[in-house]
Amino acid sequence: MENRFDLIVLGGGPAGYNAAEKAAHAGLKTVLFEERALGGVCLNEGCIPTKTLLYSAKILDYAHHGESYGVTVEGAKLDHSKVVDRKNKVVKTLVSGVGAQMRGAGVTVVPKTAVIKGKGAEGFTVTADGADYTAPKLLVCTGSEAVVPPIPGLKESYEAGFAMTNREILDIRAIPEKVVVVGGGVIGLEMASYFCSTGAEVYVVEMLDKIAGPTEREISSILEKNYSKRGVKFILGAKVASVKGKAGEGVVEYEKDGKTESIKCNTVLVSTGRRARTKGIGLEEIGVRLERGAVVTDERLRTNVPGVWAAGDVNGKIMLAHTAYREGEVAVADMLGKKDSVDYRAIPSVIYTNPEVGSVGETVETAKKAGIEAEEATISLRYSGRYVAENEGGDGIVKVVYGKEHHDILGVHMIGSYASEIIFGAAAMVARHQRVSDVEKLVFPHPTVCEVIREAMFSID
Amino acid sequence: MENRFDLIVLGGGPAGYNAAEKAAHAGLKTVLFEERALGGVCLNEGCIPTKTLLYSAKILDYAHHGESYGVTVEGAKLDHSKVVDRKNKVVKTLVSGVGAQMRGAGVTVVPKTAVIKGKGAEGFTVTADGADYTAPKLLVCTGSEAVVPPIPGLKESYEAGFAMTNREILDIRAIPEKVVVVGGGVIGLEMASYFCSTGAEVYVVEMLDKIAGPTEREISSILEKNYSKRGVKFILGAKVASVKGKAGEGVVEYEKDGKTESIKCNTVLVSTGRRARTKGIGLEEIGVRLERGAVVTDERLRTNVPGVWAAGDVNGKIMLAHTAYREGEVAVADMLGKKDSVDYRAIPSVIYTNPEVGSVGETVETAKKAGIEAEEATISLRYSGRYVAENEGGDGIVKVVYGKEHHDILGVHMIGSYASEIIFGAAAMVARHQRVSDVEKLVFPHPTVCEVIREAMFSID
Repeated sequence: MENRFDLIVLGGGPAGYNAAEKAAHAGLKTVLFEERALGGVCLNEGCIPTKTLLYSAKILDYAHHGESYGVTVEGAKLDHSKVVDRKNKVVKTLVSGVGAQMRGAGVTVVPKTAVIKGKGAEGFTVTADGADYTAPKLLVCTGSEAVVPPIPGLKESYEAGFAMTNREILDIRAIPEKVVVVGGGVIGLEMASYFCSTGAEVYVVEMLDKIAGPTEREISSILEKNYSKRGVKFILGAKVASVKGKAGEGVVEYEKDGKTESIKCNTVLVSTGRRARTKGIGLEEIGVRLERGAVVTDERLRTNVPGVWAAGDVNGKIMLAHTAYREGEVAVADMLGKKDSVDYRAIPSVIYTNPEVGSVGETVETAKKAGIEAEEATISLRYSGRYVAENEGGDGIVKVVYGKEHHDILGVHMIGSYASEIIFGAAAMVARHQRVSDVEKLVFPHPTVCEVIREAMFSID
Repeated sequence: MENRFDLIVLGGGPAGYNAAEKAAHAGLKTVLFEERALGGVCLNEGCIPTKTLLYSAKILDYAHHGESYGVTVEGAKLDHSKVVDRKNKVVKTLVSGVGAQMRGAGVTVVPKTAVIKGKGAEGFTVTADGADYTAPKLLVCTGSEAVVPPIPGLKESYEAGFAMTNREILDIRAIPEKVVVVGGGVIGLEMASYFCSTGAEVYVVEMLDKIAGPTEREISSILEKNYSKRGVKFILGAKVASVKGKAGEGVVEYEKDGKTESIKCNTVLVSTGRRARTKGIGLEEIGVRLERGAVVTDERLRTNVPGVWAAGDVNGKIMLAHTAYREGEVAVADMLGKKDSVDYRAIPSVIYTNPEVGSVGETVETAKKAGIEAEEATISLRYSGRYVAENEGGDGIVKVVYGKEHHDILGVHMIGSYASEIIFGAAAMVARHQRVSDVEKLVFPHPTVCEVIREAMFSID
């Protein structure tokens, strides 16, 4: 009897914990199951840990590049083991913060693996550690996991500790001398950036002809140029043929332009993508429909089964923590009979490299594919006095993509300092269907890097 | 004959050069007079030079505080003379950028002092270096100058090189051991911040009971606490009684709580405010109305004299470069018969200290005075994982001020990292009359500091 709830949430990552809190605030008696730590991949082995590492690397970068700014430094050193300790401390603080948030909202948190058993008169039943829990509403937020692709030798190399995913790499205690990153997406690039700053020899092997996944092409190329200058070797259009090694040493073989080459290295990071975690949860017991391994949801995050919603990476739409937050909120709004939906047009994304990349909305390329007549205005961040003051030799740009007919802002893409903290404002422009002339009338503070977005508007006739 | 124009612009600062460019683009034959360097106070002895200095100081701060983040640095040193050289280089680059912009737009730039002679059949006539120029339209953008208050001994100390304004302080070649800053407003605090980082002993003497002028009270107090911890001595509610000294040494006497105290120091920075530059321009020849020394303008930047507009500091409204830009644009729009106006409710402001302060719109205090029923929600930046990752012991906050009845966003005030680059997005919320529920539906990227603004919305019932 005491195990009857209004809402069962499976998974305590960004989608799950945020939805649970909002639901509990709205009066739903909510239970949340999380088998690992609250906060999910994002907080424990994703966004937050990497940002902690990257911030330490940034401090080291500053020390190394200070001379151009009149600051000289002797013997700057990064102690990776201390950085990892600090990362663990930051994660612990934030995880316990999420715990406090759950208690504050009155959410029952069960730190166990939960499996769906079926549906009865009282609703859905899940079982965890021998106990049953029921509720008429079920929200699936089981997230995603790193894909370990079927490369010969990779599985064994992973088990032997030569190959790692984002999970293991964040806990190694020393910087490897030589690292190969397989997959030049966001996770791969952020870790490549960290290892590059800390003195490792870094190779990035990527199947596509460009890095940074769906990032706008010119921006992706500027990012590549920046890291090439700093010594990262990019091997694009290459397919990894084998990974063989034990902890601390091994070889990565790849094929490029019909030739097979190999790199000896100490560690391999495999960051070739993530897939929805839909196995072993019992989704099949209640007939939840999957497509390519992900739960199918509509714009209100409903699945095909009435009373079951799915938010976050598990629905495979946009695997970003902030999308997960918002999807969780929309799912809860729908449970409460409120009209709400996710505006997938206006979801920003960030790469925390140095320079940073911030993007939102369409590129001219994606707009074209979607049948939208779009044009772009690109200007240098050197239009910003602050950027010039803070970036010797900086080559950052901002690109505004707009509809040809109405000059409505469809996308903003930038590379350079503060892009991560600026892009939310551009996302609001896209979300609000702002036109170029609307943004021209806003006042941006001077001197800032963000004001180049406004400047870009004036370059559009 | 060749000196006949459609528009005469007096002053080549942010208001003047931007307006001249926009006017020329719109087809007006435009002449711009600037007796010093293009870019005005902002570019030559204000915003940009200080940001260059502060960035070098930030690099030094990073080196000093690296240990908390796992980075150790030995012998970090800032060479002030090199920093000033670099500042001069940055300013030179940007000034020549403005020159290129003027040439590109077809603006005639006359690097001379211009004085209004009067109005005739062909319009207004100004004279510069013996030549006359006429135009039916006149835009006054003569900016502002530092006030040197009538403190006994100050004038002599200024002439002797002991006391300085923002102009002189930016070109000294060595960090003084002990500095007294008279006036704890934005300019005073930014320079105090620089001197503090570079190892000087810094005193800030301020007449009011708080620093940072109109900055929201709690934020002002957090800023004060941060700098007090770093060793800056704030003497609030104090009146400077005398300033006496020669280059390199002297004494500042002040009265506080009925007692007179004195500080021996090497340099005094006087930053007690600025006043509109309206003298010696010939405004009286055409009867332009002034009030408290500033040109009176309406919401379209018109003066009382038809055909004469005034934009930027000279109208004494809001002495910020970005307001000047916008005012220049609105004045030009009015000349062209287009309807436009400055939304003075939504002008952001920034203090580039470390932590940074960003503000826009009403505080509860100012709202009350304006007869608006407002409430506020204040939350810690420690809700942001990125903030926690990047700020050991950080005490930043964000404060959202909203209308009691409609929950419309009236103001946003924050102190902490990236505030300078985040606040434009909050200014857009105020400008667009966004409500709390509107911002809740936007997606902010994670993990960022800016997402705390969204989080603050959810703390409002």
